[in-house]
Amino acid sequence: MKIVIVGGVAAGMSAATRLRRGSEDAQIVVLEAGDHVSYANCGLPYHAGGVIEDREALLLQTPESLAARFRLDVRVGHRVVDVDPDARTVTVETADGTVVESYDELVLSPGARPVVPPVPGVERALVLRDVADVDRLVREIDRATADDAGDAPADGPTAVVIGAGFVGLEVAENLVRRGLRVTLVELADQVLAPLDPEMAVRVHDELVAHGVDVRTSTQVAEVLPASVRLADPESRDLGTVPADVVVAAIGVRPDTTLAERAGAALGPRGGVLVDDDLRTSVAHVWAVGDVATKRDALAPGTIPAADDAAGLASSATLIPLANLANRHGRHVADVILGRRTGHRPAIGTAVVGVFGLTAATTGRSEKRLRAEGRAHRVIHTHPAQHAGYYPGATPMALKLLVDPATDAILGAQAVGRDGVDKRIDVIATAVAGGLTASDLMDLELAYAPAYGSAKDPVNMLGYVADNLRAGETRSVQWHELDAAVAAGAVVVDVRTPDEHARGTVEVGGVPSLALPLDELRARHHEIAGRRVVVHCQVGQRGHTAARLLTGLGHDVVNLDGGNLTWRDGVRAQAVRSVTTVA
Amino acid sequence: MKIVIVGGVAAGMSAATRLRRGSEDAQIVVLEAGDHVSYANCGLPYHAGGVIEDREALLLQTPESLAARFRLDVRVGHRVVDVDPDARTVTVETADGTVVESYDELVLSPGARPVVPPVPGVERALVLRDVADVDRLVREIDRATADDAGDAPADGPTAVVIGAGFVGLEVAENLVRRGLRVTLVELADQVLAPLDPEMAVRVHDELVAHGVDVRTSTQVAEVLPASVRLADPESRDLGTVPADVVVAAIGVRPDTTLAERAGAALGPRGGVLVDDDLRTSVAHVWAVGDVATKRDALAPGTIPAADDAAGLASSATLIPLANLANRHGRHVADVILGRRTGHRPAIGTAVVGVFGLTAATTGRSEKRLRAEGRAHRVIHTHPAQHAGYYPGATPMALKLLVDPATDAILGAQAVGRDGVDKRIDVIATAVAGGLTASDLMDLELAYAPAYGSAKDPVNMLGYVADNLRAGETRSVQWHELDAAVAAGAVVVDVRTPDEHARGTVEVGGVPSLALPLDELRARHHEIAGRRVVVHCQVGQRGHTAARLLTGLGHDVVNLDGGNLTWRDGVRAQAVRSVTTVA
Repeated sequence: MKIVIVGGVAAGMSAATRLRRGSEDAQIVVLEAGDHVSYANCGLPYHAGGVIEDREALLLQTPESLAARFRLDVRVGHRVVDVDPDARTVTVETADGTVVESYDELVLSPGARPVVPPVPGVERALVLRDVADVDRLVREIDRATADDAGDAPADGPTAVVIGAGFVGLEVAENLVRRGLRVTLVELADQVLAPLDPEMAVRVHDELVAHGVDVRTSTQVAEVLPASVRLADPESRDLGTVPADVVVAAIGVRPDTTLAERAGAALGPRGGVLVDDDLRTSVAHVWAVGDVATKRDALAPGTIPAADDAAGLASSATLIPLANLANRHGRHVADVILGRRTGHRPAIGTAVVGVFGLTAATTGRSEKRLRAEGRAHRVIHTHPAQHAGYYPGATPMALKLLVDPATDAILGAQAVGRDGVDKRIDVIATAVAGGLTASDLMDLELAYAPAYGSAKDPVNMLGYVADNLRAGETRSVQWHELDAAVAAGAVVVDVRTPDEHARGTVEVGGVPSLALPLDELRARHHEIAGRRVVVHCQVGQRGHTAARLLTGLGHDVVNLDGGNLTWRDGVRAQAVRSVTTVA
Repeated sequence: MKIVIVGGVAAGMSAATRLRRGSEDAQIVVLEAGDHVSYANCGLPYHAGGVIEDREALLLQTPESLAARFRLDVRVGHRVVDVDPDARTVTVETADGTVVESYDELVLSPGARPVVPPVPGVERALVLRDVADVDRLVREIDRATADDAGDAPADGPTAVVIGAGFVGLEVAENLVRRGLRVTLVELADQVLAPLDPEMAVRVHDELVAHGVDVRTSTQVAEVLPASVRLADPESRDLGTVPADVVVAAIGVRPDTTLAERAGAALGPRGGVLVDDDLRTSVAHVWAVGDVATKRDALAPGTIPAADDAAGLASSATLIPLANLANRHGRHVADVILGRRTGHRPAIGTAVVGVFGLTAATTGRSEKRLRAEGRAHRVIHTHPAQHAGYYPGATPMALKLLVDPATDAILGAQAVGRDGVDKRIDVIATAVAGGLTASDLMDLELAYAPAYGSAKDPVNMLGYVADNLRAGETRSVQWHELDAAVAAGAVVVDVRTPDEHARGTVEVGGVPSLALPLDELRARHHEIAGRRVVVHCQVGQRGHTAARLLTGLGHDVVNLDGGNLTWRDGVRAQAVRSVTTVA
């Protein structure tokens, strides 16, 4: 059996090595258009920033090492330009001319291409997809730094990063690390689109605190020789910002050229449509990794059966993440070798570090659920990563999205300095195991004061979810507060007078009424007859207050996430709007 | 309704506050024998060590604060000495005499008592259960330090810690932090009994590296005024070690005095037997927290039905952990209020930090499975906590126990410097969600180079489990190697010659045969006709070698965990034996 794999990174190379481990006899040919295979593409921004100093560290394998260990026939500089699925051949352009290579099975793993905005001068913008790209970026940084050596910081080297997604943030951080003044331009009205705005604003503020000029609701109109012209979403001119270096990181698009030449059907979102075993619509042609669709584990409605083609297409999604790419590679090898069939649908879990702040997400965001028109329950908490009495406790913002009909976990997000990735991983695992939101309260998580709390942040999410599920607590979201007050509710701050004085929830400029939790029983007559929204700092005392007032006969809801989430929400609204260049 | 709760920490106080949030009308009385309620008992060792400087930080609530917020009637210095379940009264000793208190429902949450070894002089040994204990310990440390001020380090203050479990290790670390020379005495042949020896030995060596004199297979024969006399397990005298301070931390025993006076049945392991809703065998008497049994989620055979009294008793176990205690407290409140029924069985997850090393465990250990006579599959890996090319990558030791018949996860252990608690939490969550060992390979865990790997350590465990499940790989454990060689196998080191030269697996003093992976295809005839055990450093190249050699027709098994696990195993055997005092 001769298997030809197009693309020698992540999914493609996982498939190749897994095939070899499964079959010493198979002929395995890997055709890679670039000069490198099996490199650490997620490390590229950190090499640009000097964190990973040694470029060689990025090159995990070479064609030689793969030949020695896995007897793989790896050919770099081999660009596959055509497929003949009837003849089972591919046409390959090499430095020595064009050759035709036959196959029994063809695995397409070309990945995704960075999208660049279609504006004048954009050819100067760099992207960050492969080793050649990072070499180019390092050269540009070095050049910009050398040119501006000795200048005052205000006149030092500059960069514009287009796109504030995961890669854009990593690039921005690393350019700052190299001493560049960075403008981060994002067309959406928030950074880090996979998160909801009241979560992402913490990342926004962290970027600003580290000197990044963050421009949301802003697009690039033109790339000029030493600057970039910005515009608002309606293309009104916003002036220019200096840019010795320009990096485009607005996203990626599946590289479907070859698959289309093979006649493979594409999915609704532009990826190569594959079934649960990574077969394309063309016999003996498989697609894996970022180019291929994933089954969406969280698609609305029931998950379609494996033989329901229309259902599968409708639940196909794109999730260009390394862990799913590797999973694809292993799975396709097992299927080709006849070892396995069937595949777990994908949730999508991701993390990014930005100047010591960590932001992570799994599953659906609130805005996506809203765009899908799906009912959802929202929980915000602000727990410390470990016991509050142990030194170094710092709060994180944590958010859980729940299906109110089934109590299923639909998604989670977290932003904080420590312990963020752990909680998201636990919740992602809970989703994979089919645990409900309320089930989170019973998880047995490792506890000692330096590692967590006897009631871990994830347990606490479960407690809140269970209280909401059982109807024991009702909550109102930060963005629903104005409407509640307009409808006649009184907002009550149950924190201490000191906390209240340091700043509190305001609606239309009117601060909430201070009525401390420990005085509620004595003073609750002061709010008699009014619908009550209680709030505290994070939602926990608010819950106790809501239970207490309910027990005393009041109609009461708790402001979810308390003062902190409300403040984040208001701040998120404040940073949405476009900033005119001074 | 009048609810009397005996014991105002963890489970008891969780029950009290949950009851109040559920019912503004209930009369809730908390009777606590000690002077404090709701204190951070897991923080006590760290207060002794000066990590948590402020003693007040340990006191999370006071009777006054609980009265103000939760309208709880909390009475400290109230020792309940008797129960009359027919009259539904308890007898309480107070400073002002004995009183009788009636109840509708009685919740017993007295916790567990530290066990002290029954040896002469043991009354000088301190324990660490409550705030009064830590005050005493701090005074003793201060006294010892002051007495020995100015002495040479060798003559400085000294301590003996009896018991090398979780608390013993925390105490030892904190005494070292305070400048004491510590001897850690453990009757078992390893530290940290919940872990298997080849995992725990890393903790042992970390203790030794920080100056702790670790004595396994050693007991305390007598506590003398300034020293402790040691003996081997057969009570042969081992001489004395200096001990200005002596702390006993050999374990805890459920404080069942009251429950027994009430006539409540005890479980097979000495805890108060409770059903899934925390009812004891006596009407209107409930037991929660460390005093009560837990349903064992991993008991051999099928989990008994909730109405199968004999089955429940046989699967009852004791797990004195704070997270389960809090869970009990919340659950009993919900049951008493008629809100809920049924309870998730317990797995048992725990973590301890020792001088910057973290050791964590969930579920069953290998030795416990062996003691139960249960079939089990063992997997050792040594992954880094994040991408190897990203700075700061350090390996951990990771172990997974699997039911070979069902692929169910039975337990996991991890020891390392970073990312250990995360992986154990993920695996504990997988167990709760009923995921199999092979399912771990598909978990979508947050990946960026600073946080994990595209194939996370947990995914890798899943890969290995899947390979073993499918019969694609066979492995041999470190302790099975001698027998394999005795039966004629040849041990082959597939690492590089350099790695081999730096130290390799030896059986009976004979080092393994160096045959590097990348030369195997050319040289495999050198081992023709022999059964082969391959090994590498951690098991991964060994797997590739095993697949390759199998493909070439050899009978081959892979040494699980490679050279590192073998070395840990041999080292664990070396430290088992008793050390005679010099």
